[in-house]
Amino acid sequence: MITVTKLICAQRDADDPLRHIRERFELPENVIYLDGNSLGALPRTTSATLQNTIRQQWGNDLIRAWNKHDWVNFPKRIGDKLAQMLGAAPGEIVAADSTSINIFKLLAGALELPAIRNNKQRRVILSEAGNFPTDLYMAQGLNVLLGNQYTLKLVAADQLAASMNETVAVALITQADYCSGHLHDMAALNVAAHQAGTRILWDLSHTAGAVPVSLNESGAEMAVGCGYKYLNGGPGAPAYCYVARALQPNFATPLAGWFGHQAPFAFSPEYAPAPGIERLLAGTPSILAMQALDCGLASFDDVSMQAVRQKSLALSDMFWALMDEHCAGLGFHCVSPREHAERASQLSFAHEHAYAVMQALIDRGVVGDFRQPNLLRFGFTPLYTRFIDVWNAVMVIRDVMQASAWQDAKYHHRNAVT
Amino acid sequence: MITVTKLICAQRDADDPLRHIRERFELPENVIYLDGNSLGALPRTTSATLQNTIRQQWGNDLIRAWNKHDWVNFPKRIGDKLAQMLGAAPGEIVAADSTSINIFKLLAGALELPAIRNNKQRRVILSEAGNFPTDLYMAQGLNVLLGNQYTLKLVAADQLAASMNETVAVALITQADYCSGHLHDMAALNVAAHQAGTRILWDLSHTAGAVPVSLNESGAEMAVGCGYKYLNGGPGAPAYCYVARALQPNFATPLAGWFGHQAPFAFSPEYAPAPGIERLLAGTPSILAMQALDCGLASFDDVSMQAVRQKSLALSDMFWALMDEHCAGLGFHCVSPREHAERASQLSFAHEHAYAVMQALIDRGVVGDFRQPNLLRFGFTPLYTRFIDVWNAVMVIRDVMQASAWQDAKYHHRNAVT
Repeated sequence: MITVTKLICAQRDADDPLRHIRERFELPENVIYLDGNSLGALPRTTSATLQNTIRQQWGNDLIRAWNKHDWVNFPKRIGDKLAQMLGAAPGEIVAADSTSINIFKLLAGALELPAIRNNKQRRVILSEAGNFPTDLYMAQGLNVLLGNQYTLKLVAADQLAASMNETVAVALITQADYCSGHLHDMAALNVAAHQAGTRILWDLSHTAGAVPVSLNESGAEMAVGCGYKYLNGGPGAPAYCYVARALQPNFATPLAGWFGHQAPFAFSPEYAPAPGIERLLAGTPSILAMQALDCGLASFDDVSMQAVRQKSLALSDMFWALMDEHCAGLGFHCVSPREHAERASQLSFAHEHAYAVMQALIDRGVVGDFRQPNLLRFGFTPLYTRFIDVWNAVMVIRDVMQASAWQDAKYHHRNAVT
Repeated sequence: MITVTKLICAQRDADDPLRHIRERFELPENVIYLDGNSLGALPRTTSATLQNTIRQQWGNDLIRAWNKHDWVNFPKRIGDKLAQMLGAAPGEIVAADSTSINIFKLLAGALELPAIRNNKQRRVILSEAGNFPTDLYMAQGLNVLLGNQYTLKLVAADQLAASMNETVAVALITQADYCSGHLHDMAALNVAAHQAGTRILWDLSHTAGAVPVSLNESGAEMAVGCGYKYLNGGPGAPAYCYVARALQPNFATPLAGWFGHQAPFAFSPEYAPAPGIERLLAGTPSILAMQALDCGLASFDDVSMQAVRQKSLALSDMFWALMDEHCAGLGFHCVSPREHAERASQLSFAHEHAYAVMQALIDRGVVGDFRQPNLLRFGFTPLYTRFIDVWNAVMVIRDVMQASAWQDAKYHHRNAVT
């Protein structure tokens, strides 16, 4: 093992092909931000662009802006940009609503496909016990509405492939575990699903923008994801839906709103879905939120996802090595996968006093987050995280622990969100 | 009939108790905006407030902003402001998603109430033939998902009350017709519904902010509405949901997302609804969109809805009188109700060449909109529309017609939105 020094970190930054991308973001002084996996940082262009959208487009052009600035097609324009990033074709992704709402749309749409609806043997919705809760909640809510026709079966991550069989209608799988950062092999699970006659609905919220995703190449048929984490679209940014072209003609969402109609402004009383991916739209999209997401995506211009991935793994490898070296014996235990192929873009450390330790770190400018029951979670966002940030973060962690700073009573009161 | 002169209009503006409210908006020069019923104008505070939300809250405070600026409770804070405007109690309204999505939530929630679900006689969803299309589409989409258990019965506006009987589960009624501006008597229809054992889901999109609404006093149990028309929340602003307190404990939405959970950040795998109106939330709300809606609502600070209503009717009365006087014989026929009690805050004129005429008007700065099949629609937004605007608009209409300006070929190509 080579001992990592501060000098080595600085050298890695100097050699980093993505180092200039950091300038695309407005980052606060005195903060090492390791929570971009929860809320991405602010792109430098967002504020001025939104000002223009607000003052010129909305304020000056008013209703005419829907045509003049082609607001009508904003969800599809963003979708096409996402398609390029995620290995899909133009017309296969649309930005819309929230991840939760989109899970409902696509899960309901999948269950309504004739091959599933008419096969009473397939009445299991398969997912992971550790899936992000809203994914499970939306499946529960849909199932109640469908008269509990389905059983929501939750298994461990490593049992997903083996659990796909002739009883499984749809598997709802988040590509990366939000707690541990464990990364699924998308292509392998798609093969398993195909063999079992099951369809997978992927949730890319914790991978898109940090891990290369090849939706078409890996055989993925349906996916959703959020815009506010690695995509830097701002708090509560619009989410997106992917439905592979071949599946689109038969795909219907029960959230059949006017923006998904084939001719919204014909004001026909009968719903008729748009021919393409726009059928996944429901109500009028927030143009301000769409504009901010568009700025978030622009921060990836000319950035290769392979370079992002390479730096992401280098950052997390270094963080882990520094924790091993400088924080050994301080009660931390990394629960994230050691293998690169199984690791997304975060590391999570179990600690008996995880909540209080994280509050003390945040107070000193090292911003990660706490996750139940005992995890400190650190995300690595290669567009703006530097190697020197990793070095400095671990030094602060060591100091906080050695000074027992986290024992201060003020760090033990729980806030709603951290 | 008193002949209205330009001088009289100027005098009406001078005497208008709401005249200073216009200063709260940024309005373009040389435009008479009569489409605030479609997209409200820009409040003066929105741009700077959003800048602060973007740069200070998001950019500087990053993930910590969820607590520090109480983003978590933004949907409920806005809901409480709306409750004050709409005659509801705090905790009865929450801002969320789009109107379309909210119709699905509340309609599904209503159909799942035991009194409806267990009564197989009630299998009709009643609505108006002329309801706004997305309302009907969402009902259709929900019904398909429920195996077409229900019949969507569409009747004329004046047949709604008589059509409520023991077969009707829910009536989906938009308080004001988006084409004609016809206004329903909310209290009377609530009485009819109560007698028939039916529940009404109100859509306030075309009334809230222009017509006084008293949800509690009129006996309304459920309502949704949009934030981007009279509420000035910006294009695609968040919508809202109202569920009367008494109905809340039994009310469940199938769009059961994590923001509607009783403890979102406990990350429990089992959904359990929040005790109050927050259970109508689904995914993470767009904070930028919420902030803009909040600015839109602030434009109503210290404004009485009675004063708004009085001015709204005075504006539309004057517009109609001026059209009668100056545009007689030019092919216009007003399809809006003459009676104040039946009129919302718009007037619609049928004309054989409505589309081309409206394009010619827009080109001359009089911005209304066209609605199928032959309507010119003019909205009156008392916070920023002046009596002199009404005078000038009618003079432009007269000039355009007299000069046959609308016959230019360029006005006959149809855009997506007008």
